[in-house]
Amino acid sequence: MEKSYDDIPLREGERVDDLLTQNLHIIQSPDVFSFSMDAVLLGRFASVPARGRVLDLCTGNGVIPLLLSTRTKAQIEGVEIQERLADMAERSVAMNGLQERIAIHKADLKTFHQTAGHGMYDAVTVNPPYTALTGSDIKANLHEAIARHEIHCTLEDVVQACGRLVKQGGKVSMVHRPHRLADILTLMRQYKIEPKRVRFVHPRAGMEANMVLVEGLRDGKPEMRILPPLIVYNEEGVYGDEIMDIYYGGQKEV
Amino acid sequence: MEKSYDDIPLREGERVDDLLTQNLHIIQSPDVFSFSMDAVLLGRFASVPARGRVLDLCTGNGVIPLLLSTRTKAQIEGVEIQERLADMAERSVAMNGLQERIAIHKADLKTFHQTAGHGMYDAVTVNPPYTALTGSDIKANLHEAIARHEIHCTLEDVVQACGRLVKQGGKVSMVHRPHRLADILTLMRQYKIEPKRVRFVHPRAGMEANMVLVEGLRDGKPEMRILPPLIVYNEEGVYGDEIMDIYYGGQKEV
Repeated sequence: MEKSYDDIPLREGERVDDLLTQNLHIIQSPDVFSFSMDAVLLGRFASVPARGRVLDLCTGNGVIPLLLSTRTKAQIEGVEIQERLADMAERSVAMNGLQERIAIHKADLKTFHQTAGHGMYDAVTVNPPYTALTGSDIKANLHEAIARHEIHCTLEDVVQACGRLVKQGGKVSMVHRPHRLADILTLMRQYKIEPKRVRFVHPRAGMEANMVLVEGLRDGKPEMRILPPLIVYNEEGVYGDEIMDIYYGGQKEV
Repeated sequence: MEKSYDDIPLREGERVDDLLTQNLHIIQSPDVFSFSMDAVLLGRFASVPARGRVLDLCTGNGVIPLLLSTRTKAQIEGVEIQERLADMAERSVAMNGLQERIAIHKADLKTFHQTAGHGMYDAVTVNPPYTALTGSDIKANLHEAIARHEIHCTLEDVVQACGRLVKQGGKVSMVHRPHRLADILTLMRQYKIEPKRVRFVHPRAGMEANMVLVEGLRDGKPEMRILPPLIVYNEEGVYGDEIMDIYYGGQKEV
């Protein structure tokens, strides 16, 4: 179904992309921020309660709240430190008519608990910046650099914030790079989030993982599961069945 | 080639099994201890130096030293706390004529450094007992229970021993169950072994991992790799190519 976005205020360089699920659409900008497969996979991997409150940190242009809104009736909030991205996210929420279910906060995850309180969320998701900052990383595009690199927050800041904001027995889900796995698991334990479910994403069956999905339980007991590997491309070099389902399967429900 | 073992002193219930690689054989006893696929995979996964000194903790009937002897010219030592198993291991070493390359110590890994010294090994391997002890675990077979459960040593004892015995820059390789992964990685870091390579073993492509191989570097820098998943059974329900190669490929070299 073709939609018209004449009433959506787009800023220069922005475009509206189809989220390919439940007829959702999102404002993106190649110059500022576009979501990646990481966000799509986290949106499917994360355990979310049927109702209650869900929080997405480092929400960027709001892709994860939008995706999660198809899987839960919970109230969803997104936190984004960059004004420019928080504004994109808010307009995307409005464009999809989801203002009553998704709220975007322009805020710093390191201090968000001061207004939001401790332990108020049933689930927290986060697709944080992946790499430690080096001087050469901040190129022309500061927005992209902030989203990708640990400029405003370190991995420890992120995990600490998750531990503070999620309630006892609540779930924390993260997507990250596998080379940080030891950091992720040790930090989760340090902040009382016990790792419970881990899934590795491999570009092909014979290749090393280039993405990891981790879910932990606040104050959970030790014992974790390693889920079946998620292989992106099959032997023919095209998306495997599971990736096809994650990307396009949602539409079948429409 | 058929071999005669008339000169090998076997005790009641023992038999000689073919290790299927380099014409090696091993004494086993279903009543006492038989090696499993875990040991075979660790024997292939572990990085071993071309020369130098390699130590295998919880060596059982010596399967890992025997397997490693096909991949390195290093001097290999095995540590086993159970007299009965250490004796089996020593006889297996002799049966294969490897007395000059493999030494078995009947010793406790918790105190082995008192005689062996600190940081004297280029590589340490270990296939430890997997599960915490519960009262019902010690059934009729105490030998098996000790090998499988944390009776004589906990996971922390094992990792601590590895950290003490391996030299700076040396490798520590372990096979374990994935549900302990967070414990393994946090303990490794605690004892200065930085996790570097991890490989998960899945019975089938769509199933959760039931085994994990982990290798760390003493005093290494953080950054780890998740290797391609090792799938045991292929879609036809028979061993996949890689398992076939690990089990039988070695023979081709003979």
